[in-house]
Amino acid sequence: METLALYEKYLREISKLNSAVALLVWDQRTYIPKGGHEARAEVVGKLSTMAFEMAISDELGGYLEALEGQDGLSEAQRASVRVVGKQYRRTKAIPPALFEQYVIDRSKSEAAWEEAKENGDFALFEPHLTKMVDYAKKFAEYYGYEDCAYDALVDEFEPGMTCRELKTIIEPLREKLVPLLRRLTEDGTAPDNRLLAGSFPLDKQRELSLRALRTMNYDFNHGRMDDTVHPFTIGIAPGDVRVTNRFIETMPLSGLMGAMHEGGHALYDLGMPAEIQYLGLGNGASFGFHESQSRMWENMVGRSLPFWKMFRREVVDVFPQLSSATAEDLYRAVNVVKPSLIRVEADEVTYNLHIMVRFELEQALFDGSLAVADLPEAWNSTMEEYLGVRPASNAEGVLQDVHWSGGMFGYFPSYMLGNLYAAQLFAAIRRDIPDLDSRIAGGDTKPLLDWTRDKIHLVGQIYEPADLIRKVTDEPLSPSYFLDYIEAKYFPMYGL
Amino acid sequence: METLALYEKYLREISKLNSAVALLVWDQRTYIPKGGHEARAEVVGKLSTMAFEMAISDELGGYLEALEGQDGLSEAQRASVRVVGKQYRRTKAIPPALFEQYVIDRSKSEAAWEEAKENGDFALFEPHLTKMVDYAKKFAEYYGYEDCAYDALVDEFEPGMTCRELKTIIEPLREKLVPLLRRLTEDGTAPDNRLLAGSFPLDKQRELSLRALRTMNYDFNHGRMDDTVHPFTIGIAPGDVRVTNRFIETMPLSGLMGAMHEGGHALYDLGMPAEIQYLGLGNGASFGFHESQSRMWENMVGRSLPFWKMFRREVVDVFPQLSSATAEDLYRAVNVVKPSLIRVEADEVTYNLHIMVRFELEQALFDGSLAVADLPEAWNSTMEEYLGVRPASNAEGVLQDVHWSGGMFGYFPSYMLGNLYAAQLFAAIRRDIPDLDSRIAGGDTKPLLDWTRDKIHLVGQIYEPADLIRKVTDEPLSPSYFLDYIEAKYFPMYGL
Repeated sequence: METLALYEKYLREISKLNSAVALLVWDQRTYIPKGGHEARAEVVGKLSTMAFEMAISDELGGYLEALEGQDGLSEAQRASVRVVGKQYRRTKAIPPALFEQYVIDRSKSEAAWEEAKENGDFALFEPHLTKMVDYAKKFAEYYGYEDCAYDALVDEFEPGMTCRELKTIIEPLREKLVPLLRRLTEDGTAPDNRLLAGSFPLDKQRELSLRALRTMNYDFNHGRMDDTVHPFTIGIAPGDVRVTNRFIETMPLSGLMGAMHEGGHALYDLGMPAEIQYLGLGNGASFGFHESQSRMWENMVGRSLPFWKMFRREVVDVFPQLSSATAEDLYRAVNVVKPSLIRVEADEVTYNLHIMVRFELEQALFDGSLAVADLPEAWNSTMEEYLGVRPASNAEGVLQDVHWSGGMFGYFPSYMLGNLYAAQLFAAIRRDIPDLDSRIAGGDTKPLLDWTRDKIHLVGQIYEPADLIRKVTDEPLSPSYFLDYIEAKYFPMYGL
Repeated sequence: METLALYEKYLREISKLNSAVALLVWDQRTYIPKGGHEARAEVVGKLSTMAFEMAISDELGGYLEALEGQDGLSEAQRASVRVVGKQYRRTKAIPPALFEQYVIDRSKSEAAWEEAKENGDFALFEPHLTKMVDYAKKFAEYYGYEDCAYDALVDEFEPGMTCRELKTIIEPLREKLVPLLRRLTEDGTAPDNRLLAGSFPLDKQRELSLRALRTMNYDFNHGRMDDTVHPFTIGIAPGDVRVTNRFIETMPLSGLMGAMHEGGHALYDLGMPAEIQYLGLGNGASFGFHESQSRMWENMVGRSLPFWKMFRREVVDVFPQLSSATAEDLYRAVNVVKPSLIRVEADEVTYNLHIMVRFELEQALFDGSLAVADLPEAWNSTMEEYLGVRPASNAEGVLQDVHWSGGMFGYFPSYMLGNLYAAQLFAAIRRDIPDLDSRIAGGDTKPLLDWTRDKIHLVGQIYEPADLIRKVTDEPLSPSYFLDYIEAKYFPMYGL
């Protein structure tokens, strides 16, 4: 077992470097003074490179080779060898010279995207995006795949997921969701959210978010919330997982929902035992599973009536101008469904449609049926088809997301999978905790957290997502739970 | 010049590790959640060890050997080889096994000191302190010295300084200062500081400190001020130098003075060009010189009448309850002289006497004339002799400072040297800027900053402190400037 001990020690050393990088990045996005950015980029670069070199070293390769198939490993140790080994092989598969050129071109692509978005000018971005697609295609060949090249990419974010399976999920979902949305918007009566109009001081909003995080049992001995431009959650180390948030004066509950979203991510990370994390299994089962935890707290809890029965008094306490609002009023006000152009502002009914647009286009880019030059038009017409709205400019259309500029193809489905996992998990939770609603309405979210902790958080990345969802819900992933959830919630709300 | 380029690159890599460590430490003392400490200690340990190993590597040794005496180096490069080489040889001089044991014993000593201080029980600390003194004696032998073993220790903090020279500074200073203090307290009339009684909200105090830092031209694009328990300044990187501060509700101007003190340190670090810092010359000429910059801003500026003529309106704006106070009232209120037991709370007249007590005892410990067991009594009687006050407990006496528990002997004189450098520099500044007082009273501290920047900050650690003080004031260090400053300020204030 000597090799095992050396392997674990080696991973622990990598995790220390990653912990330092995490803090450097957290600071870059929260407190760093402007004049610190230049030197910081170099420091992050150095430590990231050191961690990267350790993660592809022959030393690690030797440990992995010795441990693969070795008897006497625990389940977590076997999973570690599987997960770390897979990442090792993927990274080693790319010729270093190609990867180096990719990193350089990626920086240029990200910069070009920023400028293109600012000017709504796709032409500025097009040659860079073409390069990024070409790189991704090459990488997919190096990684290897059975069916579509896209599978090799999506596997990075959702291990074991394939384009074929995604299609079997997406197509039936879209066939129901598109008419459902039309019915809501055309035949239904939208909730009134005018009570949220006005100006709400940022420090009060911040206070409200802190209270929501406490309600979720997010432990401030193990985390904190700070302001940032783009909210995110970051694990600095086991026992130190921080969220960030932003607040907009005219959107009093937007920061609150952001806090619950990030809080859900943070609870996942905090729920993974240190020994799991130090085995390289601390990222959660998949990006989709991670997103399920954030979406569950944001939507299934934060946009539910039981939550507002409990949380109304906090809102009124912080914003006395809302004291005439009932729990029902607030519940309705945060659940307006409205097809819009921007994914990150989408409600929970339309959100998955935004993802489907992107999935459709990614598919077409990678099977060769769509050229990058034709992307803007394809984007606009698919938006119109799925959501019934058409961007007037590329800034509000194909240029809105950063992901592609950084070569991240196959990432978007994670967002949708998160919504679907969340609904399926929540249905299972309801079966196991029949009085869940009244517990939440009474301010007690602990049973919910405990359920997710026991079944999902504790095991980290030990299981692949397809196995985990089957393990904890006795079924493979199915979009029907999400559809049921949406119908049960929105039809009555919209008077249908 | 190939070696030179490699050497500079090598130092740059060390500085990146140190930058990461600095941020990790800053966070440990400001924002880290409780639960993050355990993992953080390991991360700091790893990165510090990596930086340490780079600083004593054979690779660095090879560069230094090749560059020592090499022609064609700039003044800064030669200084770098001198400073880095000296540190390299000092560190290499200690046998690794001895150093390793020292690090372990030091942790125990620090923990024992904390407990001893809490209980006012010197006996708990005594065996650990004995060990620390023994280590320091051994280290001094390894470092080497000409006259006293103490010289080898003080050289770490004040390069080139010796116990003999310190005695020639301290003895005449003490001979004047002890009677001067007696005259002030016995014959003089102390200023009235009752106007500062009351309760002053912490966020207002914070605001006041921020305004003072702006007055000093501390640039918040290159720094920030955060709350902490023990205020400190930390250079995260060139262009990112942060101060921390603490505030006490019943001491409205204590945080302000702390801000100006730390701000002085920060201005020094920010004034050193990046290329000087990357050559390993970014610590300033010495600890004493660093302290001169903080004490100058805190005392020569912050406790001066011109400053209060300008800053009174800020105080009154933030604390309307002080609106009846004149600039003169405030100036007098922050300048009460009172012999007391605790160094860190001492006024500028008695402060150096606290240092002399420590210097006297360190001398005696290292020349063998005082046993550690006899330290408490020696402390108390020396305090009585120099300051006229006698601690009732060891917690307020010999146990008050952390330094000795961590093996830091020879550090204390830096504080005193800082006061003396500051007075001598300020006299030179007055000669060069005849209208300094009216500039400050008008809110313009820029000429003062520019002077220190040009003459002191810009050159970093290129010169040894004895050379630097001679270079910029045309004289060797002399305590007479400090005495003149004290007499000119306090005799009139005390009606003498």
